[in-house]
Amino acid sequence: MNKTQLVDLILKKKSFLCIGLDTDITKIPAHLLDTEDPVFEFNRQIIDATIDLAVAYKPNLAFYESRGVKGLISLEKTMQYLEKFRSEVFTIADAKRGDIGNTSEMYARLFFDKSASAMDFDAVTVAPYMGEDSVKPFLSYADKWVILLALTSNKGADNFQMLSSGDKKLFEHVLSVSSQWGSDENMMYVVGATRAEMLTEIRKIVPSHFLLIPGVGAQGGSLQDVVEYGINSQVGLLVNSSRAIIYASRGIDFAAKAREEAAKVKDEMEALLLQHNLI
Amino acid sequence: MNKTQLVDLILKKKSFLCIGLDTDITKIPAHLLDTEDPVFEFNRQIIDATIDLAVAYKPNLAFYESRGVKGLISLEKTMQYLEKFRSEVFTIADAKRGDIGNTSEMYARLFFDKSASAMDFDAVTVAPYMGEDSVKPFLSYADKWVILLALTSNKGADNFQMLSSGDKKLFEHVLSVSSQWGSDENMMYVVGATRAEMLTEIRKIVPSHFLLIPGVGAQGGSLQDVVEYGINSQVGLLVNSSRAIIYASRGIDFAAKAREEAAKVKDEMEALLLQHNLI
Repeated sequence: MNKTQLVDLILKKKSFLCIGLDTDITKIPAHLLDTEDPVFEFNRQIIDATIDLAVAYKPNLAFYESRGVKGLISLEKTMQYLEKFRSEVFTIADAKRGDIGNTSEMYARLFFDKSASAMDFDAVTVAPYMGEDSVKPFLSYADKWVILLALTSNKGADNFQMLSSGDKKLFEHVLSVSSQWGSDENMMYVVGATRAEMLTEIRKIVPSHFLLIPGVGAQGGSLQDVVEYGINSQVGLLVNSSRAIIYASRGIDFAAKAREEAAKVKDEMEALLLQHNLI
Repeated sequence: MNKTQLVDLILKKKSFLCIGLDTDITKIPAHLLDTEDPVFEFNRQIIDATIDLAVAYKPNLAFYESRGVKGLISLEKTMQYLEKFRSEVFTIADAKRGDIGNTSEMYARLFFDKSASAMDFDAVTVAPYMGEDSVKPFLSYADKWVILLALTSNKGADNFQMLSSGDKKLFEHVLSVSSQWGSDENMMYVVGATRAEMLTEIRKIVPSHFLLIPGVGAQGGSLQDVVEYGINSQVGLLVNSSRAIIYASRGIDFAAKAREEAAKVKDEMEALLLQHNLI
């Protein structure tokens, strides 16, 4: 999916909600455990219940890989299911990969090349530590995106991301250096909602890039602050919520409750888009 | 495997060679392509041919994952095969993972908890960008190791790892800060052989930690330099070679040729261990 299509989708759905499919088999409703593939069944019902409210889905690879082959099968089935909504949602492999060039090429194949792995994501999250040649292989696919970690929402972000070098912090170097590797048509950045006040400075470095914002919901970030400091003329935001939506209920009504939670966020997003004269 | 066992193994085998199982189905000998699982069959024959020469094997996850479920099955079979050499080799999942705490917990389960994924590695490579809480979950398993990226062997290492902050470069901050998260009994560091001259400074920060050194062989680093600047009283080095060994021949003799290459490296290592009075 290219940038124009993504922006159109956001304006059409009046939502920039990304739902994180951090599907943990120990947390899904008991009645699903008798189905052939409980994790896929959970995802399918969440997707069906929220497809008109969300612009993106973001499976977190760890939750699938931690179950070995079974988990990967659940993920592949989820991605195959999302195929039928191809033009209606943006898909993100939350994988935080990054390695030397020949290895990043392999990861790119995993996420972007359907002939290799039965998966065809629009985007993958990548860690910046190994630099340009670890990121570039992901940028060689048309209409596919790298979402590079810049400033994450966890406490450990303070260890290195906030270190000062010259007049900039490390995450600011990551933004300014890496923005030369691609463009706002194939790169986005992860910026944690728990650091919304820093979005003003971030927007000075990357005014037009999309930002993927985790940390709203269970991690405590505020949607209003994120929009206040981070929105741009093409919206430029995908705000992720995982646990607060997908685990809204652990009962038989989990999908309906997930929809209720997603609708609350979507309504707040619609109001904010109106307020900023974007719809 | 704990540190004492690893050091004993190195002294017994007179080798600190790690063989990287970067097994690419497009590069393995044609005669294996008719077997049920060519990637596993390749690995099995490489392992059988080199088990007395190598102290560690390091499958690179990307090469398996890029083939989807099929690839993961090849990897699980390789790890199950290595079980029979449990006390004779150290195993490393070269995965370069790292995410917020609950996600890193999932990755730890994938690599360290056999009940979850049929894999039971001794160590996993982790990227430091997200800081302490992204690394800690891997350190909660007894006799398991985190191998944290410090200074990598690729060109992109210059983008961020070499940035100065105060009187230290970023990778030196990574070494000094992260060495407080665990100990030399459960943490190692990746330091590229292409930067061997920097090992002197690195040894000032982490004198007793093991270092995993990629970049000898195809990437051009020198074993002699690595040992000169990096060895300590418990050896403290695992030197990896992938392509130069496993692809020594693409013919029917690939395993014998891999053994020849591994033996050359092992002999050089034995001579260097003797020269440093360690055996």
